[in-house]
Amino acid sequence: MFKAEITVTLRPSILDPQGKAAQHALGELGFDSVRQVRIGKVIALDIEADTADEAERIAKDAADKLLANPVMEDFDVVIHEHTSA
Amino acid sequence: MFKAEITVTLRPSILDPQGKAAQHALGELGFDSVRQVRIGKVIALDIEADTADEAERIAKDAADKLLANPVMEDFDVVIHEHTSA
Repeated sequence: MFKAEITVTLRPSILDPQGKAAQHALGELGFDSVRQVRIGKVIALDIEADTADEAERIAKDAADKLLANPVMEDFDVVIHEHTSA
Repeated sequence: MFKAEITVTLRPSILDPQGKAAQHALGELGFDSVRQVRIGKVIALDIEADTADEAERIAKDAADKLLANPVMEDFDVVIHEHTSA
């Protein structure tokens, strides 16, 4: 069993209103040194696979087909081996 | 300038309906080897600070006070130095 961590972030050219709202709220709380806020998703998958390469292939395929929007988002996959099966 | 990456995840005891929905959708697409899906947030902050320690303190404070819900979520902070100021 492997754990895949897929980080999905908005492309730099895409506006992030949720991040802007968080930045504004931080400013109201006195966090003046925070210059930019961008909010993305982190998706943790438990994958039944024989090898880390196979788990990575499955995770990338899942991100391509469902979990990320290729027009607006980039994604990155990291595979960890599960100690407990 | 530092970049802080705050990863906010639901505590293991908290149900994740969004993750369950994604897992179900992956099953419909034939991803039978995906056993569990948990969805969290990744928040990237650009922080004006003199040292990495100060940037980390600000990022943790922002997560505590606004960006994470301490009852339902855990968070983790990683600081990177910005090459371009």
